[in-house]
Amino acid sequence: MSDVHSRVSADELSTFIACAFESVGVPESDAKIVSKIMTEIDLLGGSGHGVFRLPQYIRRIKAGGMNVTPDIQLEHETNSTAVVHGDNCIGHLAVKRATDVAIEKAEKMGVAWAGVKMGNHAGTASVYARMALPNDMIGIYSAVGSANHLPPWGGLEMLLSTNPIAIGVPAMDEPPVVLDMATTVAAYGKVKTAAQRGEEMPVGWMVDNQGQPLTDPKRSNEGFLIPVGEYKGYGMALVLGLLAGTLNGAAMGHDVIDFNADDESLTNTGQFICMISLKAFGDVDEFKRQVDDLARSLRASPTLPGFDQVRLPGESSQGKHDDFSKNGIPVHPELTKALDVLAQDLGITSLF
Amino acid sequence: MSDVHSRVSADELSTFIACAFESVGVPESDAKIVSKIMTEIDLLGGSGHGVFRLPQYIRRIKAGGMNVTPDIQLEHETNSTAVVHGDNCIGHLAVKRATDVAIEKAEKMGVAWAGVKMGNHAGTASVYARMALPNDMIGIYSAVGSANHLPPWGGLEMLLSTNPIAIGVPAMDEPPVVLDMATTVAAYGKVKTAAQRGEEMPVGWMVDNQGQPLTDPKRSNEGFLIPVGEYKGYGMALVLGLLAGTLNGAAMGHDVIDFNADDESLTNTGQFICMISLKAFGDVDEFKRQVDDLARSLRASPTLPGFDQVRLPGESSQGKHDDFSKNGIPVHPELTKALDVLAQDLGITSLF
Repeated sequence: MSDVHSRVSADELSTFIACAFESVGVPESDAKIVSKIMTEIDLLGGSGHGVFRLPQYIRRIKAGGMNVTPDIQLEHETNSTAVVHGDNCIGHLAVKRATDVAIEKAEKMGVAWAGVKMGNHAGTASVYARMALPNDMIGIYSAVGSANHLPPWGGLEMLLSTNPIAIGVPAMDEPPVVLDMATTVAAYGKVKTAAQRGEEMPVGWMVDNQGQPLTDPKRSNEGFLIPVGEYKGYGMALVLGLLAGTLNGAAMGHDVIDFNADDESLTNTGQFICMISLKAFGDVDEFKRQVDDLARSLRASPTLPGFDQVRLPGESSQGKHDDFSKNGIPVHPELTKALDVLAQDLGITSLF
Repeated sequence: MSDVHSRVSADELSTFIACAFESVGVPESDAKIVSKIMTEIDLLGGSGHGVFRLPQYIRRIKAGGMNVTPDIQLEHETNSTAVVHGDNCIGHLAVKRATDVAIEKAEKMGVAWAGVKMGNHAGTASVYARMALPNDMIGIYSAVGSANHLPPWGGLEMLLSTNPIAIGVPAMDEPPVVLDMATTVAAYGKVKTAAQRGEEMPVGWMVDNQGQPLTDPKRSNEGFLIPVGEYKGYGMALVLGLLAGTLNGAAMGHDVIDFNADDESLTNTGQFICMISLKAFGDVDEFKRQVDDLARSLRASPTLPGFDQVRLPGESSQGKHDDFSKNGIPVHPELTKALDVLAQDLGITSLF
């Protein structure tokens, strides 16, 4: 099998995604919002969470597991907070609405917090945290993951997900600082990739149900992911889940549906976004210049043997965004095939 | 040397701390606030951050490095945000003010965010996050650590601190869920303890300046702490520092003063506290009951070999609080001695 990736322009990809959604009954305006976000995820190199997920989203819509004509509403609104009721919409729509509401409220109030209930899987965390940046805001986002792969520390029952957190901070001339991390050492996607390639996993990614290192990715269903920093990552996954799920009346713990295994059940996925307006804290340009200074001092600092350079969170994504915007988004041959099958199935023009 | 800890009641300890501060010119009302918080830290088992720090705080005040008659003011106030200018006060005073302001604003607005500049070391993170709980709020706190022990991932220069984060979530009948973690695998205090006891450190706590495991705690000044989850913990320390320091105009990166080595220079320490009012998101009791349910399902879940029970973040601190409130706070013999010396030096009544 060839490993050469096809490249596709952001416009072509976005149009293809929108067509696919429209072909299963999603209104044009909603299809546009979702396709734009999914394309942005691919531009930022979040290849496991962009168009890669399209076949699964379409399958869920066809199975009746996602509502294509949702009535998305605000619940429990205050001056600085809101809960968005997604009405089982495509996840991106509810989170985008929450993000817009939080930006609008933070502009007036200095800070705002918007939660989502009755949503679905919405892609990478950082794509939403990054929406803060052009508004001179800091964005903080988290979500309840769409499948439980993580037991509590010392436990055997997978009651938690790899609940990610993203924090985006604007800079002046330097790339923004954007952290985007799962609360497990390895994301589940990495395990799947290792299995596909027949590679062994390093010790520290997974343990078996005796607590022993599990390094054969083909046996991944006999064990579970290890949280970042052991009990610390477990604690983070738990409190982020309380904030992104429970606080909004969304699923958490044993209520979480495995959306990879089940296309039909209501997932009631929850997320939150917090927006902090820089101007509420002082001079905006002064802040951004200080982020630049800090970034430069980190990058200019001496390295350990084996490292060519100190990098900053979000730097690699920003580099991919610049590259992929100019030269096209690389699509893995396996995904190319899957998208061709999808296009044929939906009766829309193929991407390639 | 005897390892038997003396026990002292919370009231006795609080009175002793207040007397010590008053003897060096701190007004009675301020001394009361700080001594109450420091005692609460000891009640919660944060033994490295409570009365343990008293001799150092007094030394700094005597050296002119901390202002005993500060004019603490709000800067850049909006409906939901504020920056507290601590005027180089004892750190706890500025963070307590920020916490009070955030609670008051969150009560009205749903969420509020207050930052601190020109503060100082303020104790554990969780003591402030916990102040949310009786107000039916979730509290999120972070701080720029008071000394840089952490290089960026792949780097050699200690430009970052172990910036901690605490998140406190109220429950109904169960203990609250309170995460309190440094962004390094081990806190520096653990290294010091290992050195004192002549014990080897496990691989994973520190590396030397060649990136090789450093396990001899006596050589700790030849290496540095490892961040939680490697580049993830580095990213967390960085963005938390931007939020707790840079955003408020407080020190971050190479501006951070090592307050262990320097009693005189202005530290300009920064912290932030975010308060989220539960009632802005729905029914308060319903939320707390769901936290109870989740806590019970985690605690009742089966364990890995070697674990007797799944624990929740904050459970152990809560247990200590119950024990120490009833039976007194244990004080290590070494600390007893240090506090005796301090009492003699200040001409106040000894604690023991």
